[in-house]
Amino acid sequence: MIKITLPDNSVREYSKGITGAEIASSISPRLAKEVLSVTVNGEIWDINRPIEEDSSVRLHKFEDNEGKHAFWHSSAHLMAEAIEQLFPGTKFGIGPAIENGFYYDVDPGETVTITELDLPLIEKRMKELAALSQPFLREPVSREEALRIFNEKGDSYKTELISELEDGTITLYRSGEFTDLCRGPHLPDSGSIKAIKVLSVAGAYWRGDEKRKMMTRIYGITFPKQKMLDEYLEMLEEAKKRDHRKLGRELELFTFSQKVGMGLPLWLPKGAELRQRLIDFMTAELKRRGYSMVSTPHIGNVDLYKTSGHYEKYGADSFQPLKTPQEGEEFMLKPMNCPHHCEIFNATPHSYKDLPVRMAEFGTVYRYEQHGELHGLTRVRSFTQDDAHHFCEPDQMKEEFKSIIDLVQWVFNSLNFNEYTAQISLRDPANKEKYIGNDENWDKAEKAIIEAASEKGLETVIVKGEAAFYGPKLDFMVRDAIGRKWQLGTIQVDYNLPERFDLHYIGRDNQKHQPVMLHRAIFGSLERFVAVLIESTAGKFPLWLAPEQVVILPISEKFHDYAKKVSNFLNNYDIRTLKDERNEKIGKKIRDNELKKIPYLLIIGEKEAEAGTVSVRRQGEGDRGVMELEEFARFIKDEITRETA
Amino acid sequence: MIKITLPDNSVREYSKGITGAEIASSISPRLAKEVLSVTVNGEIWDINRPIEEDSSVRLHKFEDNEGKHAFWHSSAHLMAEAIEQLFPGTKFGIGPAIENGFYYDVDPGETVTITELDLPLIEKRMKELAALSQPFLREPVSREEALRIFNEKGDSYKTELISELEDGTITLYRSGEFTDLCRGPHLPDSGSIKAIKVLSVAGAYWRGDEKRKMMTRIYGITFPKQKMLDEYLEMLEEAKKRDHRKLGRELELFTFSQKVGMGLPLWLPKGAELRQRLIDFMTAELKRRGYSMVSTPHIGNVDLYKTSGHYEKYGADSFQPLKTPQEGEEFMLKPMNCPHHCEIFNATPHSYKDLPVRMAEFGTVYRYEQHGELHGLTRVRSFTQDDAHHFCEPDQMKEEFKSIIDLVQWVFNSLNFNEYTAQISLRDPANKEKYIGNDENWDKAEKAIIEAASEKGLETVIVKGEAAFYGPKLDFMVRDAIGRKWQLGTIQVDYNLPERFDLHYIGRDNQKHQPVMLHRAIFGSLERFVAVLIESTAGKFPLWLAPEQVVILPISEKFHDYAKKVSNFLNNYDIRTLKDERNEKIGKKIRDNELKKIPYLLIIGEKEAEAGTVSVRRQGEGDRGVMELEEFARFIKDEITRETA
Repeated sequence: MIKITLPDNSVREYSKGITGAEIASSISPRLAKEVLSVTVNGEIWDINRPIEEDSSVRLHKFEDNEGKHAFWHSSAHLMAEAIEQLFPGTKFGIGPAIENGFYYDVDPGETVTITELDLPLIEKRMKELAALSQPFLREPVSREEALRIFNEKGDSYKTELISELEDGTITLYRSGEFTDLCRGPHLPDSGSIKAIKVLSVAGAYWRGDEKRKMMTRIYGITFPKQKMLDEYLEMLEEAKKRDHRKLGRELELFTFSQKVGMGLPLWLPKGAELRQRLIDFMTAELKRRGYSMVSTPHIGNVDLYKTSGHYEKYGADSFQPLKTPQEGEEFMLKPMNCPHHCEIFNATPHSYKDLPVRMAEFGTVYRYEQHGELHGLTRVRSFTQDDAHHFCEPDQMKEEFKSIIDLVQWVFNSLNFNEYTAQISLRDPANKEKYIGNDENWDKAEKAIIEAASEKGLETVIVKGEAAFYGPKLDFMVRDAIGRKWQLGTIQVDYNLPERFDLHYIGRDNQKHQPVMLHRAIFGSLERFVAVLIESTAGKFPLWLAPEQVVILPISEKFHDYAKKVSNFLNNYDIRTLKDERNEKIGKKIRDNELKKIPYLLIIGEKEAEAGTVSVRRQGEGDRGVMELEEFARFIKDEITRETA
Repeated sequence: MIKITLPDNSVREYSKGITGAEIASSISPRLAKEVLSVTVNGEIWDINRPIEEDSSVRLHKFEDNEGKHAFWHSSAHLMAEAIEQLFPGTKFGIGPAIENGFYYDVDPGETVTITELDLPLIEKRMKELAALSQPFLREPVSREEALRIFNEKGDSYKTELISELEDGTITLYRSGEFTDLCRGPHLPDSGSIKAIKVLSVAGAYWRGDEKRKMMTRIYGITFPKQKMLDEYLEMLEEAKKRDHRKLGRELELFTFSQKVGMGLPLWLPKGAELRQRLIDFMTAELKRRGYSMVSTPHIGNVDLYKTSGHYEKYGADSFQPLKTPQEGEEFMLKPMNCPHHCEIFNATPHSYKDLPVRMAEFGTVYRYEQHGELHGLTRVRSFTQDDAHHFCEPDQMKEEFKSIIDLVQWVFNSLNFNEYTAQISLRDPANKEKYIGNDENWDKAEKAIIEAASEKGLETVIVKGEAAFYGPKLDFMVRDAIGRKWQLGTIQVDYNLPERFDLHYIGRDNQKHQPVMLHRAIFGSLERFVAVLIESTAGKFPLWLAPEQVVILPISEKFHDYAKKVSNFLNNYDIRTLKDERNEKIGKKIRDNELKKIPYLLIIGEKEAEAGTVSVRRQGEGDRGVMELEEFARFIKDEITRETA
């Protein structure tokens, strides 16, 4: 008998040679049906591989990343088998599972091309193969044997990969007629792959090297249920419509210019308004919560970054230092605001009575990203962080954490981000030498985070070994309207910078003490946050955030005077208003302005002008009836109050 | 007879050989007493130099720069004469008039040092010499003769200067026993120098070259009346107290850090608050006036600056371009916002109906200044401009100019800058080749500025030849509370960038047209403007701008609860409040907080806590009586409304 320890720390005894599948069966028939892979002593295995010794075991379903990985990795093999049958002689590169689905890089030979038109064919063959419920068979082989097999097949990409592997570590997986070099794990058989979509085809250099062969990369995704695939494809369709790059252009929020440089967003008036509104919203709340705003330059002498350690870290892969006419003088674009904030902390003396100091800045930072990695507003070279640093006594850490969690929850709430989770990243207790700072401080900080999260009722996952080298952290993940997850909000403990900048305060004992520093951002960056907002609202921003809240549509030129009166009236209430005085039919004006996603449309004609009223339409929802001006202004104000309450 | 044309274009006839002094006499006895120098056909002359031909003539009094210049230049000679008598064997360098007074660089020899202690002595001797009313006698000499004279005297600095002059252009001036190499002009005699102050002594390298001799630089100032000197010295004393670097430190507004880099201000919380208040104040008004805010990064690809022409201009003396890991990719810190704004204009199509486009940004720009040129916030390497660009049709130029002048006047008014003048800088009609753009455009732009200024009732000086190469401009000068002048506000026409960036809009004729671009800033830079604000208010900011408006002083710990209640109450009214809960006597608390220049001090004790009132003191003015909380909040709000009305 061997002892199997489960994630809840319960221990069960089983016969030697028990498999993950059998353990699942012994727990519940439902689990037995759903289990896809198993982690045995930290290594992911097939669920039918025998376990020979006492082990700690985690079973993975499709909902878990490890389960999805096995599912999609097996699906990649299935696709390769289909391609081999449809395009005989195809050579195979690599075929990994990715965040959503899988791909396979293949080389169909000089004379054959696989195009979009072939994808339905591949998909059909995959479905046929899946229906056969072919098992995926694991087979450890010697290097010699592996080379022989793939040489015989003529799979030169595989032999190249094998030649780089160590003997004794090589496994093959066979399914039906297809054999692949593969570490696994895989599903027991293809029968659970019920829903299949081959998505797209693209080019990709073999091993990412532009000097080598351009392969054909085929993307696919699979699910255990058709309904899940339908939902995924619907989400994909919806995501395409909500793509912030597309909506950003259509709604005239931001642009990029080749001359200014890739990845450097230019905020157009409406985008700048939206951005400013987020800044104002956050600033007002920060002031209520005892933060002080500061403002610092976008460059710093290299000495600053030598002190902070960023100089070493941001090396050749980054924006290079900037010389001046003075010999030996060099500056760097700031990659983060913390070194500047440390210098501000150092600029005035501090007593324990002044702590915590909460210093905030909407600081624009610059980080070099490769051209190919840039993506709309989510991956840029300049971005503005809603950055803050808390300098506190060690004993204040928990309260500061709680206050930040509270702020994050308040912000998410105000923006209707109602589904979110948090991850607590702790140090790897087995590799303490990777981290700076002593045990006592780490224990104190980790305890503070865990307790703070629990006291604030936060749903958390604790992951060991994912802390930064300078301290543990807490990250928030938000789920958007179409089910995608976005990382927003981070809180990090830092024992490093206070040391490097020799920060101190005078304690109750009249001695110098080193404060703890917490880094935190809630939006993360305004650029990324606006992208998330656009994608999650599909550009229909909440009224309080909308760059333009009301558009006035006079039905003819005769009512331009009254339009002006309405506009002035609303401007006095700080309602952001514009007029559409084009010489167009009212129907067209309504249609055009609906597309601009301006929340309210006011139609005015004879009746309205005479009565001093407006006919109100809600974008996307239709008529809201006739209102007097004062009534409409109150109506708008009430909606904003409800939104931001 | 010759014809003399006066500035009002009137023409008078005089005998040949008439002097400026005699012309002044012929106009009025008072003018005769006050005239100090005369411009004859564009050249400044002594007032007793005979005029031999038809000429245009301007007479200068002490109030004019040209008058002051002659007065102070003559005073420098007077000081040199005094030094020569007191320190025989002293060699003389140069002794120019400067913005306020004059200096002389002297070399008293190896064994003699002139120190602060000698200054009263020099001053006394100057007064004695002035009382002698010695004439300043102009004497054209040959180079040979000049070299002979100064060689004989052993004045090696003067002979070095003479050796670089062309023969036939050299004049000497003699006064008493002192002879100087000098272009003039000078006063007729030293009798009008009634009030004299030798101010200070410093070191200065001969000809600014650190490899050459360190000379002794002695500064002085003189006036035609003792009262003027007294006022000047008082102003100097007051200016020292108001020095923004000193007050910035004392009021904890900003700081500099060696590690971050010289000339890169770090805004501390109170300074950042003040700065933000100026931004908010301006932004609200810009929106009312039809501006759109945009936001752009702080770097741009060198291509942007090659297009704009800044790449050529900001060369070796500037921050150098910034490389990236990608071969050939280079960025520059932005020295101005206009190229980015041009790219934003280009990002969307424009019709004549969209013009004028008014695009504004509080954009932080970076310009390299030599270490030695940096000065507090007035000369920095990073500064935030309240920058805007108007893109308009040529015919809209005058209206746009008027709207900007109106805005400038509104801002000055709101900030109590009631004394200001403006300078219109036009092209030099004799050197048209120095400027880009055609005659028609220049005439149109110059006419637009002149008419706009006149229609807005602006007091202006028109100066030919001071326009930028790309267009004419209008600059505002503000006089502060102690009489100093600051340049604030500029409007410039630009025909260059629209051409370089190929900006265009579709006109009424359905053809492409190039818009005119106006650059304008009102604060200029927030850094410089805050410096001006500090120096002109001596740190006593108007209530609406004060970073902290009210400080609550409980007379003992017993009243901390009530202090908190008062603080919360005022916070709800957005009144920026802090509490002084130190364990100190109320007298000391009042004194300490008066020094912080917080506008209102609220003293609370038994009586106030019971009655729900506060005892109000105005900083620097004293008691304002007891008020109820609501009453005090209204009182504050009313004052702010009055200030910003």
